[in-house]
Amino acid sequence: MEKKIVHAPPTTTLEELFREAHSAKHRAYCPYSKFRVGAALLTTSGKIYSGCNVENASYPLSTCAERTAIVKAVSEGEANFQAIAITSDVDAGYCGPCGACRQTIAEFGLDIDVYLLNPQNECKMFKFRELLPFAFTPRDLQKTRATHDIID
Amino acid sequence: MEKKIVHAPPTTTLEELFREAHSAKHRAYCPYSKFRVGAALLTTSGKIYSGCNVENASYPLSTCAERTAIVKAVSEGEANFQAIAITSDVDAGYCGPCGACRQTIAEFGLDIDVYLLNPQNECKMFKFRELLPFAFTPRDLQKTRATHDIID
Amino acid sequence: MEKKIVHAPPTTTLEELFREAHSAKHRAYCPYSKFRVGAALLTTSGKIYSGCNVENASYPLSTCAERTAIVKAVSEGEANFQAIAITSDVDAGYCGPCGACRQTIAEFGLDIDVYLLNPQNECKMFKFRELLPFAFTPRDLQKTRATHDIID
Amino acid sequence: MEKKIVHAPPTTTLEELFREAHSAKHRAYCPYSKFRVGAALLTTSGKIYSGCNVENASYPLSTCAERTAIVKAVSEGEANFQAIAITSDVDAGYCGPCGACRQTIAEFGLDIDVYLLNPQNECKMFKFRELLPFAFTPRDLQKTRATHDIID
Ligand SMILES: [Zn+2]
Ligand SMILES: [Zn+2]
Ligand SMILES: [Zn+2]
Ligand SMILES: [Zn+2]
Repeated sequence: MEKKIVHAPPTTTLEELFREAHSAKHRAYCPYSKFRVGAALLTTSGKIYSGCNVENASYPLSTCAERTAIVKAVSEGEANFQAIAITSDVDAGYCGPCGACRQTIAEFGLDIDVYLLNPQNECKMFKFRELLPFAFTPRDLQKTRATHDIID
Repeated sequence: MEKKIVHAPPTTTLEELFREAHSAKHRAYCPYSKFRVGAALLTTSGKIYSGCNVENASYPLSTCAERTAIVKAVSEGEANFQAIAITSDVDAGYCGPCGACRQTIAEFGLDIDVYLLNPQNECKMFKFRELLPFAFTPRDLQKTRATHDIID
Repeated sequence: MEKKIVHAPPTTTLEELFREAHSAKHRAYCPYSKFRVGAALLTTSGKIYSGCNVENASYPLSTCAERTAIVKAVSEGEANFQAIAITSDVDAGYCGPCGACRQTIAEFGLDIDVYLLNPQNECKMFKFRELLPFAFTPRDLQKTRATHDIID
Repeated sequence: MEKKIVHAPPTTTLEELFREAHSAKHRAYCPYSKFRVGAALLTTSGKIYSGCNVENASYPLSTCAERTAIVKAVSEGEANFQAIAITSDVDAGYCGPCGACRQTIAEFGLDIDVYLLNPQNECKMFKFRELLPFAFTPRDLQKTRATHDIID
């Protein structure tokens, strides 16, 4: 399910992507953490899907902004992504996506660009492969299985 | 966060809600379970948000159709719901939503109507309170805490 | 995977189960919610496994006391349960388990007794089937699938 | 919550850790994926806690071997870890832990050694920081928040 991204998105597309991420942050439902996060996902077809964190009184049922954006896209029939922008209210430095979101991204390819934004719209970019080295991917489930191990 | 639903949605709205649930099922990303699920959520403002299940090679990172629809709505600023329709490919009888989805619904109110649909568009309706009795809700987090228990 | 529970556990066993639930609460790792929960699970073979909630800075990666106890038991080879006791610091009334925990319990059978305890060790008992009516269970995945729906 | 690990565990401890991981794999409850995983966690106090994956008919309620081991340890009062060993039935190469497990590990420190084992007990070692670069950690929640962003 991997694909190559040869060209970076045009500047105007990135500007729109970043604006959508900031805007989504304002719709965060996070009465428990009070930690607002916004994300915007750019498909290879050029569409943008945005998301925010949506929490739950039973904390494990909460979900992140990045995953909200991803399930939104997939449920609209889009599963090829070229970039994701992520922002929070953290003022200094940048926050990386959590491991669960990295795993969710990995399902749909390892060649996405990850833009971390601060509230001033400054950004730091990572190649996704830098963020989840030695990823567990759909291919792992298809690998040949041993019939014995050192115990049996 | 509860609200009262006085009137059932008009028939044409329900028809559209059901159609959206079936349609969303066709966009399910479920290469592991091969169990397609579609959901459509009706807000009290009359909007419909649909969702499908989106799975992951690391199974716990999968999410359900109902939760996809809910985070989609919340991330668009809608958090008051009057009905949800849910369907799968199961031919005989109806499948209830999983407990995680019930918990996610409960966060936004306990007065939503739950319509379970089969592939022939026949339905079975539950009041949400019937499906998650004695629910854990945002109110539980605000209850007075004891300063001692039988141990200390 | 269902099984019938004919006899209630003896009083001394229940007393020990309750004590284990309270005790586990004191080991809760919940720096975010500050909502301590303890659970103790009684297997049909008479063993007790206890658990507490274990939270994460990325809230969705948190897990509940009940699920901690369940995975502990299963990972020790025990998957038949007759009772679970659950407690928190909430002083008045009783808190029900969240929907995700109900779903996790349902995987291993629907005939477990659920004891909700307050800090004073008073309890309220539910039959599990009362807490997750019309449950989604392993059987649902095995049901016959329709080859067409109203859309195709 | 970080801590420095100065000395590698002694060889006999590692041998026992690896054996526990293999052994735990045999207790995996994975009727859906049929992908058995075992993990064993070594605390800085020298104790070993093992875990396996525990799945659910509602796939998102499944949990991984690594997280089973972690919640087991935490619920027994141990939250300082020096090494984790992980194994599956995959014959060739090694499978990395999923992103959700990496996030769960990160909560308790970034200096743990991760040993990936194949069924023949050969291993590949990673420093945890290599597996989750730019991790989201408890510190992120405490960072100063901006009072404005480019939108408001
Ligand atoms: Zn995340
Ligand atoms: Zn569900
Ligand atoms: Zn729970
Ligand atoms: Zn995992």
